[in-house]
This record gives sequence, C-alpha cells and structure tokens, in this order.
Amino acid sequence: MRKVITISRQFGSGGREVAKKLAESLQIPYYDKSILAKIAQKTEFSEEYIDSIVENKGTLELALTYNNTFISTAYYSPIEEVQRAQREVLEHLAEKSDCVMVGRASNHILKDIAFKVFIYSSDMDKRIDRCFNKVPEDKLTVSRLAMEKRIIKIDKKRAKYNKIYSDEKWFSMNNYHLCIDTAKIDIDTAVAIIVEAVK
Amino acid sequence: MRKVITISRQFGSGGREVAKKLAESLQIPYYDKSILAKIAQKTEFSEEYIDSIVENKGTLELALTYNNTFISTAYYSPIEEVQRAQREVLEHLAEKSDCVMVGRASNHILKDIAFKVFIYSSDMDKRIDRCFNKVPEDKLTVSRLAMEKRIIKIDKKRAKYNKIYSDEKWFSMNNYHLCIDTAKIDIDTAVAIIVEAVK
Repeated sequence: MRKVITISRQFGSGGREVAKKLAESLQIPYYDKSILAKIAQKTEFSEEYIDSIVENKGTLELALTYNNTFISTAYYSPIEEVQRAQREVLEHLAEKSDCVMVGRASNHILKDIAFKVFIYSSDMDKRIDRCFNKVPEDKLTVSRLAMEKRIIKIDKKRAKYNKIYSDEKWFSMNNYHLCIDTAKIDIDTAVAIIVEAVK
Repeated sequence: MRKVITISRQFGSGGREVAKKLAESLQIPYYDKSILAKIAQKTEFSEEYIDSIVENKGTLELALTYNNTFISTAYYSPIEEVQRAQREVLEHLAEKSDCVMVGRASNHILKDIAFKVFIYSSDMDKRIDRCFNKVPEDKLTVSRLAMEKRIIKIDKKRAKYNKIYSDEKWFSMNNYHLCIDTAKIDIDTAVAIIVEAVK
C-alpha cells in the first residue's frame, strides 16, 4: 500500500524521533519544519507568523484611514491563504512519493490517503526527562515544574490548532489509526510497530 | 518480557477476534467469559447478576423487619465482594502464565504488569456491518439504526463500568499502551502489531 504516514504527537513523547527513524527504516523522505518553510515561500509570510496564526486567531485588524483620519476597522484573515498553501504543499509532497510527515495538520488535510499515527506518553515524568535530555546541561535553567507547564502549554497549542480542522479533540483516538504510548513502548519498537502496520 | 495482555474494545470493533487470534499466535491462554464464571464461582452470585452490577449501582436494598413489621431499610453493597473476587481471579490467572484477557477491567486491575491494548473503529458503518455479519441471516430482525443504537448503548455501559476503576475516561488513550483502529487496520495486521509490540 502507499505509505503516506502522518505523525502527530504530544510534546516530549519522542514522536519526532519515531518519525525520523521510521523514514530512515522505510527509506522514504521525512518532512517536518521544511513544510513550514515551503508554506512561507508560497505565501510570503514569515515562518514565525504562520506558526503564530492559531494564537492571534488568524485575523489581522487593519485601520482604514483617509487623509490620516480613522474611518473604520477592516479585518483580513490570512489564515485562509495559509491553509490553501498548506494544503497545496502537503498534497504535492504526498503525490511526489511515499513519505513521513510530522504535524501541520497533515493527518486532517491528507486524511483520505494517510496512515495516521499518534505518539503519546502516559507518564509526565518521562516526558519531562526526555525534554531535559535534549537540552545541553549548561543551559538547564528551568525547574521540572516549569518544564511540565511548558509541555502542557505546547500541547494546548496543538489541541487548539487541531480545532481548526476537526470537531474531534486532538487527543481523541478517532483522529488516528494507531496510537502508541512511549511511556511503555520504546522508540525502536514504536518504529517496528508502524512498519508492521503499513506493510 | 512477560506477556499479560489486556484487550479492551469498542463493541463491533473486532476486539474479541483480535484477542483470540493473538492468543493463538502467541500460544498462550485466552480468558474472556471464563473470568466471569470464575468470579461467579467465588462469590456465589450469578453471572447475570455480576454483569448487571454497574446498572443497579451495586447496591441492594434490604428491608429490615421484626415480627413482620418494617423497621428500616439497610443497604448492602455486593460490588466490593465482586471486586475483591475479580481482583483475585485476574491476579491468579496472570500469575499462572502469560495470557490474553478481554474486558472485566483487567487493564486497570493488572495495570502494573499488563500490556494494555484498546481496539476501536473510527467507522460506525463498518462496526454495524461487523455486528450484522455475526448474526445468522434468518435472525436479522433489527434495522441498521437499531443496531447503531445498540452499539452506542453497549459502549456507554463499558464506559460506565470503567468509571468504577479510573478517573480517565474509557475512550482515553491514557488507559492504554497501544490503540488500534480496525476501520483502517485489518484483524491479522492488528495481531501482528501487538506481537511486535510485546516481543
């Protein structure tokens, strides 16, 4: 079968590592931040701006003026432009070849062809450990509690982003075909499971 | 690793079939209705009564009388007795050997040793089809809509039963290590995935 595999993930669950290793194992391209760069190129918005669209609810307020006098406020929603570009980029990549994609609502946009995986971790302590392990020791300035708050905040952002595309909650199984708990299943086994699933 | 695998499942998802084939594939015992029979034996309640404990909230009303005169109402909660017997039965089976268990809150009761799988189906039509396929054609008297209602009702019962043991909702990934959508993944592949996961 075609292998367009989307990986959605809780922050600190190791989802990105699973995705990279999966792409290596299947010898197919891996797309992640590069999707954002391609959308930025298409829309001429900055990557940061595209990334922040969920926060600012995707609406720009424009003050309409005439001879420096305020007339009224107009609203412009660049989110539609970004969404169109996002769809084009993802569909183009999926058509080009089998691949592994991380994030950017690829599970929703490519739902008709994708094999949709969710990587989560039922153990918050392990998620915190994983996050700390990624940071060089001399740069460790935050407490475990602060890291936990950060994890929860990023997950909330992802859940909010999911809402643009689906009535199902981000954490609901119904958005995915296979959900893997890395608190119990190590990264290499997670990769092997997905390889088995898409055989 | 030890292989005590619990299978929880949406009604009509094929979870029981996955569990049976998994036990065959791993050549380990499969426990399902037999757990209920063993609890019945231990408690001397009937299987039907044990099964209905969620519905009647597990409390029996007893009228206290003296010389045929009503004095007051006493409440007796057999649920604790059933739960104790259930825990003993499940722990005994898990100690005896590797095994596959379906339902009866085995994922909660054996959470420290079990590999916990959830089988679901994101496609209600396929669930209805699966239920119809199990019934001999000459006994098909219900409509698709009635079958759907039945599926939803049974899932609600399972969700309610889950509440006795967990603050996490029944359908939440956090109760499980691996969740498989049989709307996308066929039964044999689901079995192969679990085998890979517990290797």
